[in-house]
Amino acid sequence: MIGLSSYAGVMESLMNSAEEQQPSSPLANSWSKIQESSKNQKPKCVGGFVLVHAGAGYHSESKAKEYKHVCKRACQRAVDRLKAGALAVEAVAAALVELEDSPFTNAGMGSNLNLSGEIECDASIMDGKSLHYGAVGAISGIKNPVLVANRLLSEAQKGKLSAGRIPPCFLVGRGAHDWAVSHGIPPCPSEKMASKFSLSAYKRNKRKMELAEKIDTGHNHAKKRRQSSENENGSGCLDTVGAVVIDLEGNVAAAVSSGGLAMKHPGRVGQAAHYGCGCWAENACSMNSHSTAVSTSGSPFLAGEDRVLGGVIVLRCCRCVEPPPSQNIQGILVEFLWSHTTESMCVGYMSAQDSKAKTHISRLPPGTVPGQCLAIEGGVCRLMSVVE
Amino acid sequence: MIGLSSYAGVMESLMNSAEEQQPSSPLANSWSKIQESSKNQKPKCVGGFVLVHAGAGYHSESKAKEYKHVCKRACQRAVDRLKAGALAVEAVAAALVELEDSPFTNAGMGSNLNLSGEIECDASIMDGKSLHYGAVGAISGIKNPVLVANRLLSEAQKGKLSAGRIPPCFLVGRGAHDWAVSHGIPPCPSEKMASKFSLSAYKRNKRKMELAEKIDTGHNHAKKRRQSSENENGSGCLDTVGAVVIDLEGNVAAAVSSGGLAMKHPGRVGQAAHYGCGCWAENACSMNSHSTAVSTSGSPFLAGEDRVLGGVIVLRCCRCVEPPPSQNIQGILVEFLWSHTTESMCVGYMSAQDSKAKTHISRLPPGTVPGQCLAIEGGVCRLMSVVE
Repeated sequence: MIGLSSYAGVMESLMNSAEEQQPSSPLANSWSKIQESSKNQKPKCVGGFVLVHAGAGYHSESKAKEYKHVCKRACQRAVDRLKAGALAVEAVAAALVELEDSPFTNAGMGSNLNLSGEIECDASIMDGKSLHYGAVGAISGIKNPVLVANRLLSEAQKGKLSAGRIPPCFLVGRGAHDWAVSHGIPPCPSEKMASKFSLSAYKRNKRKMELAEKIDTGHNHAKKRRQSSENENGSGCLDTVGAVVIDLEGNVAAAVSSGGLAMKHPGRVGQAAHYGCGCWAENACSMNSHSTAVSTSGSPFLAGEDRVLGGVIVLRCCRCVEPPPSQNIQGILVEFLWSHTTESMCVGYMSAQDSKAKTHISRLPPGTVPGQCLAIEGGVCRLMSVVE
Repeated sequence: MIGLSSYAGVMESLMNSAEEQQPSSPLANSWSKIQESSKNQKPKCVGGFVLVHAGAGYHSESKAKEYKHVCKRACQRAVDRLKAGALAVEAVAAALVELEDSPFTNAGMGSNLNLSGEIECDASIMDGKSLHYGAVGAISGIKNPVLVANRLLSEAQKGKLSAGRIPPCFLVGRGAHDWAVSHGIPPCPSEKMASKFSLSAYKRNKRKMELAEKIDTGHNHAKKRRQSSENENGSGCLDTVGAVVIDLEGNVAAAVSSGGLAMKHPGRVGQAAHYGCGCWAENACSMNSHSTAVSTSGSPFLAGEDRVLGGVIVLRCCRCVEPPPSQNIQGILVEFLWSHTTESMCVGYMSAQDSKAKTHISRLPPGTVPGQCLAIEGGVCRLMSVVE
């Protein structure tokens, strides 16, 4: 394959396959909506497909525009890279940088503040071609944590260090910061990373905590914790941003980045930095005809939680040969979906032949309870490559 | 069930089931050896079963005795706790403390030193009953990292913190250390944690690194890394210790602890602290009739590695009703095994009716190459409980 052309991204129903996979799901009442796309477009140059999200949680109508905007810019960044011939892993990192740079997302700039009033971020990235993985946890003073994760991944791909040492793929805290700076990633003063929103949320949460602990004083200490009302620190709900990409060559990649929970203990690392938890990408191989890329958002360890709140974006792709007269055309069928149990989730997606990204705030059906209901939406996009 | 009695721990062949599971394994030439145990023992009080390992790597004959001793003590500690009525998760933590306290293991005291000459440890623990999990990464100045992981687990089981905050289950670096100290776990001066062995290995590795970098100077920089000889820092091979336990009530638990790779970058976190990587424990439930506990050792991210070096210990248990005349006796059938692709692995195991632990240094067959050959050994133990 040396060139790529395409025809229309045809959106098809994922309903049937989704229903087949969950024949007796307790969440059968969840809603599904299928995205429609214009058909009968002429073939033109195409470089792949990107799907991003700016957090699963609650998106007020007033901020919906901001979230859609950042998703749109993130998709555009990834597509720009894909059109320039970048591999999926580079494109997915580019999308994440845009998501991290927004002061409205809980990742990079504008992240939630921890108990000490500091920002500590988690991020990870996975390359489906090499299965290499890079991650940082509880890293401070770096504007784009995903770039450190990506650099760890690319450094590890270069092979062993001097004297046969295995290069790191997961660094945390001060060590992660120092490694980043020694690899040319500039430090960013912590005070520049906080946003007006994250600072005022911190002050609000601090007051709530003090009030809650005041009320608890004198009560039965054993009962203290459970009595305190849940999810008061609502600003921590928009936990994570993420992206999944398929490139020109059919490689997939996934990435995730998070400022973590508001008022978390310093040093806490969440699922965004956990291998196999925050993201996964795996190219098709002899054992598996499908490539898969996944990026998740939600509580890392859900055991014991009353309500399982989370979200996920998924790409699943396979090659297919077109019937005559197009025998020299190989297609890549891209199925994509997003799903969440939170009140809402803001997503964007774009293939390289699209002039701009589609964005959408997915919401649970009115009257349903977050954590007890699941929204699934998605579509299908067909990318065409000329085999010479 | 209010009382427990037992009869002999009957060891049975795992050969058949192991072969059934790997009918076309490329590792079919691996050897298997089945442990024999005395039969026809009289029933006596029994509290469960523990299996530990002191590292998969290379155990010289000269140090074999030390490794066996520490495994024996770790088994005894766990069984003592089980006999005192402790749950599996407490017993598994007790075994790990003994393994960490040995200056010969690469965990806790005597851990490998990192690039800066400091000790940073990883540990995690999982309770199969609640599925709760606790972990620390790159923690310094704490003698027993597993006790911090265990405390994170038990604190999380108490429910939410004030103002609805979710308690942490994975803490790293300075934050992990401070949390431990604030929860009554005493700090330990770093210089007391290094052993003569780990200090001399550090000096040796440092010289090797300097030499390797000297030789590389003037060579093609791009080729530099791959040219350096592999696995020169052999002291880093014994990477991890671990234990798996089943208790009186049939609950399982697993734990793992590691000083990580010698000369690792500060802040590096290895698989011992990774959710789903270092250990796993899951009680039987309506969906699964077997309880499972696993603790692993080896490279965390094996993509791109020439030789996959690792080890694992596993418990798999199910309840079974005895045939008449023993209808009021419920049995727990415990299958256990260890497996490694490293040159050797030191294990110990003990059930509560045993007077002392059995220990064993498992080795690959002579002439085989580590990473290309797999050793599997194991056995079966039947625990009996009286149903009243």
